[in-house]
Order: sequence, then C-alpha cells, then structure tokens
Amino acid sequence: MRPEALDTPTPLVDLDRVERNLTRMQAYCDRHGLRLRPHIKTHKLPQLARRQIELGAVGITCQKISEALVMAEAGCGDILLSYPIVGAAKIGPLAALARATRLTVGLDNEVALGTVAAAAQEADAEIGVLVEFESGGRRSGVQTPDEALTLARQAHGDGPLVFRGLMTYPQGPATASFVAEARSLLEREGVPLEVVSVGGTPNYGRTHEVPQATELRVGTYAYHDRATVAAGAGTLDDCALHVLTSVVSRPTPDRAILDAGSKTLSSDRVAPSVGEGYGLILEYPDAVIERLNEEHGIVDLSGCARRPAIGERVRIVPNHVCVVSNLHDAVAVTRDGEVVGTWRVAARGCTR
Amino acid sequence: MRPEALDTPTPLVDLDRVERNLTRMQAYCDRHGLRLRPHIKTHKLPQLARRQIELGAVGITCQKISEALVMAEAGCGDILLSYPIVGAAKIGPLAALARATRLTVGLDNEVALGTVAAAAQEADAEIGVLVEFESGGRRSGVQTPDEALTLARQAHGDGPLVFRGLMTYPQGPATASFVAEARSLLEREGVPLEVVSVGGTPNYGRTHEVPQATELRVGTYAYHDRATVAAGAGTLDDCALHVLTSVVSRPTPDRAILDAGSKTLSSDRVAPSVGEGYGLILEYPDAVIERLNEEHGIVDLSGCARRPAIGERVRIVPNHVCVVSNLHDAVAVTRDGEVVGTWRVAARGCTR
Repeated sequence: MRPEALDTPTPLVDLDRVERNLTRMQAYCDRHGLRLRPHIKTHKLPQLARRQIELGAVGITCQKISEALVMAEAGCGDILLSYPIVGAAKIGPLAALARATRLTVGLDNEVALGTVAAAAQEADAEIGVLVEFESGGRRSGVQTPDEALTLARQAHGDGPLVFRGLMTYPQGPATASFVAEARSLLEREGVPLEVVSVGGTPNYGRTHEVPQATELRVGTYAYHDRATVAAGAGTLDDCALHVLTSVVSRPTPDRAILDAGSKTLSSDRVAPSVGEGYGLILEYPDAVIERLNEEHGIVDLSGCARRPAIGERVRIVPNHVCVVSNLHDAVAVTRDGEVVGTWRVAARGCTR
Repeated sequence: MRPEALDTPTPLVDLDRVERNLTRMQAYCDRHGLRLRPHIKTHKLPQLARRQIELGAVGITCQKISEALVMAEAGCGDILLSYPIVGAAKIGPLAALARATRLTVGLDNEVALGTVAAAAQEADAEIGVLVEFESGGRRSGVQTPDEALTLARQAHGDGPLVFRGLMTYPQGPATASFVAEARSLLEREGVPLEVVSVGGTPNYGRTHEVPQATELRVGTYAYHDRATVAAGAGTLDDCALHVLTSVVSRPTPDRAILDAGSKTLSSDRVAPSVGEGYGLILEYPDAVIERLNEEHGIVDLSGCARRPAIGERVRIVPNHVCVVSNLHDAVAVTRDGEVVGTWRVAARGCTR
C-alpha cells in the first residue's frame, strides 16, 4: 500500500532511512572506539532497540523506569536509566527492573542514591551508578569534581551498588576538563572510573575529540528532525519520520488548515535560525505552519507560488521528532516507499 | 489514600472542583436560555461527558471521529464533530459514527461536504451540517455570509444531509453581525437557521451578549488552567487538574529539577502577561519553570525565599490543561482530598 492511502494524520517511519542512520552512527562509534548506547526516547519501539543492539550497541538508554521495563521485556539486557530516581514509590518498580536487566542508573544526589540502594537491596541485584555532572547544559548534574567524588565514594562502598563512572548531557565544552579533574580525584582514592558517558545527537560528531569519553548516548539520530538537520548532524534526506497530513480547509487564498495540530506535532519550537513555525512541509517548503491548536495546523501560504488544494496530502518533518513519537499510539512503517506494517509505540506515554 | 503517596508524575483530578465547574456553567446556560454542548477535548473521559449530560448538556462536542466513537460507545447520543472531515479514508469511520449517534458535523468547504454526504449515504443515516464561519480567530471557517449561504444551500438539498445552522470559534466581535447578515440571506431562500453555535471558555461569560447564539461549546471550564484563570473565566481554586511532581535534583541553590517535562506538561506557553514558564507551582508561586526537556522541568528558584528539597512533592497548574490530558493514559481522581480511583483517559491520542 502507498502511504498516501492511509488515513491522516499518521506518522510514517521510513525503515530504509532508519537503517542507514543506525548504521552510520554505529560506524562512527566503531571507528573511534566508542561504545554506543542509543537513547530509545526517540522511537520508543522495541523493534528498533533490538536492531540497534544487533548492529553493535552495547545496550540502551532510557529515562523512566516504565519505559525501561517495556524494553527489558522486549529483550534489552543492558539498560542505563539516565535519570535521577527519587522516592519511596520508585523502589519497587526499580527493583523489578534490576531483576530484569543489567541496570545502571545516573544520578547527581544522595537522595537518589538512597532510592537506588534501597531498590538494589529489595531486588538482591547489583545496580551500577554513574554520577551525572554538568558540562554547560544547566540541567541536572553535580557542579564540581569534588561533589562527584563524594557520591562516587558512597556508591563504591560495600553492598549491591557499583560505581561505574560519570555521565553528562549534553556533552559540552567543560566535559574534558571536568572528567580529567574527577579522574585524578578518584584515582587518588582508588575508585576505578570505567565509564565516561556523553550524549546528544546535534554535536555527536565531536565526541571523539573528548579523549576520556567511552560511551555515546544518542537518540534523535535514528529519525533526525528539523533541529538535528539544522545542527548539521544529518540531512533532510535522513529524516525518517514524516507526519502525513491532509489539507482540510483553505479559508483564504493565503491560509491552509492541516489536520495536524499540537496533539500531532507537539508545540516544540526551533530557534528562529533553524526555521519558522511548527515543522517543515516538504511539498511546500515556503509555507509556514504559523500556529497550532490541538487539531489545527494553521499555515501561512503567502510565501508560496504553488498552493495546496483541500484534500491534498502533505508530509511534515517535525521540529522535534522524539515528542512526536510520544503523541502517537502507532506508526506506519515503510520500506521502498510501501507501507509494510503498523508498529505500536510500545514505550509511549511512559512518564514514570 | 492521600495523593502525596502516589508515584510521580501523575495528573490529579479533583472531582469536587469539577462538579462545581460543571454546575456553574450549566447554570449560566440555563439562566440565558443557551444549550450547553461541552467539548470533551479537555478531559477526554466518558465519566465526565456523561456527568455533563446528566447536568443538562444537550450533547457533546468532539473534534475527531475516533474520539467521538469512544464517546458514542460510552452512551453519548448527540455529538457535534466541530471539525472539517475530508477525504475517502474518513467516509467509513464517519458512517460508523452516524449509525451510533445523532451526528452533526461542522465544515467550511465543499470537499468536506462531499465527504460527509458520502458517509451519510453509506450509513443510510441523517447527518446534520453546521457551516463554520470565521469571526476573528483566523483559523478555519468561511469568510463571508455569501459563502455560508452557498454551503447551506448545498446541505439543505434532498438526501441524508440536513443543514442545521452556523458555528464559530472562538466567538469574536464579528459573530453577531455575521450571523445577522447570514440569517437574512438564508431566510430569503427559505433555509431555516436552527442552531448558532459559539465556543470558547475564556470569554464564555459574554455569550449572552450575542443575541443570536443558541448553543455554547466550551471545554476547558471543566478543569480550568493558567490561561482561563488569567482570562478571568475561573479562579485558581477552580483548577481541577494538578500535576503532582517530585523534585529530583537541586544542582545549584537557584535551580531545581522536577520530574515533569514536556511529555508531562506539554510545551504550550502562555502569554507573558499571564505568567512565566511552563506552569504554576502552587507551593512555590515565585518559582519559574523556565525550560522543559522531555522528562526534566528546569526550575529557577532565584525569586523564592523558601526552596524545595529533593524528594519533595509539588503540584503544578498547567498552562493549557487539555493538552496535558492528552499526554496521560490515566488520571488519579480525588474526592475530599483522597484518591478514590484511577480513570483511563479513554479518548486520549485520538488524532484521526
């Protein structure tokens, strides 16, 4: 079946492009001796997680326990949970995960360390610990090598926790100096530093310039989107998820309405330097999706010579593809331009 | 169970506040002789749709066929689909809906009219038509009373379509004059104008000033949010959906990380006049949720005298509550401050 025969809106995943994207990233990592640990947040599909592992990934990255449980059940045997897990309600689910897979958790504080230790004890299973540090992203992460040392020491004690190393996101200019300083502090105390995990698709190509990095966490590279293309990490031809939509109204000569609003595309913006609006319409690149309501994409056609008719199908490259995956129960998958199946987005909506 | 014992992040719906909100809106409509037709996009819950009807609503409003099918199955016997339905792939589902409920469809173009006519024929069931007009919202809708007349004439012919009236969203300053002019055109041709349907929670309280309005479509009033409170349509105490979240990191004195990012709160903004950031933290109203990643809410605490500890639970009033409902498979419901159940968001993710 041709995709154009599908009901709209629907996300279309081009498996040929996905394969090319996965292969290219694995080759980059192989070339530079980096272990690849893809972040499944972009696709949320067990089918693609398994393919990433088949191609050479050492395991996967998840952020939430519930999505990691989906992936463990699908056979992923080595999972990094790159998110601070905090609170009594998390201990049971985290213990279940530790029993189901080789588990490592990234964290930046003692409360999270206590939660993870309690889960390891309840599971009677080892849980690895990476200490998250900040390298310019102003998100989570310890601020100084001394703080990293304090947490590493606590994780390196007796018991079921095992300190495995350091992690940061996004990899920034401060990564190398932070790791160098932390490494010397850890060595002085005899704490081994096995893993240095860095992440982010936009500047993945500079990972080999960080000499201490051992592991790369990237997600968006599987599909790419308007933001990673603008960052130079891929091209428009690498974009593997398009949202197929229909023109449902043409109220004025300069305006079209698409059946893709914020429930379909999300409200995520890109920097003005990347492009205008809420996605790129491939067939009408001069059109601007200027506003979104939940079900309406309001398109400004004033810059277009050619203009679409009501009923016409158009494809949108999303601004940020990961959040689009999270909005849809299923994706249609294509090979050689033909629809070959519908895959349930099994780890969609896993916020806990 | 107290909500604070729940795993986070989780949406909490206060059923006492919902009941108050529903009752107040029904009273407004009763007072002014308006028929209330609530938009279920806000809650997406059959339980609340049925309650709205019990309290006096004449039916409900949906935007997509798939969500209307969920509601028809749950017993909603009168549904307005306030969205242009276009294309061959829609005919079968629309016909199924026409067999399941008393159906009216809003539209603004002939292609949609053709789709609806084909569905009515396939279903062998009557489908009502409202012609959508624009009254200042710059979204869909015919631009002139003459265009409305043309479509009304076509819908008023023989066959299973029945022209029922006009609709607009959001109700704007041009509503009254447009309806007056369209009415006189229609009367001249003997086309009866039964329904004038207007909508939008923010300025619902002015609906009775539009003398021709017969029906009010409102959704957000069931829960309210930061935007409708700013518009004066409700108060902070009317906000019936809070997102319960945990502080998972405090990387610096001025920064907290919440386990609620764009997958939990959406990236919807509000106007700067309404407030800063991606939601209001009730316990720390001076804090600003300044950035969201998918799972991280990055909070600026620099304006706060008191600051939260890691592990602390906080409640967020969303900027735009309808899109929050769409992100969650289930909501915890409370009465008198206690959790009394978990309701599946049955019409979540219904984009088609």
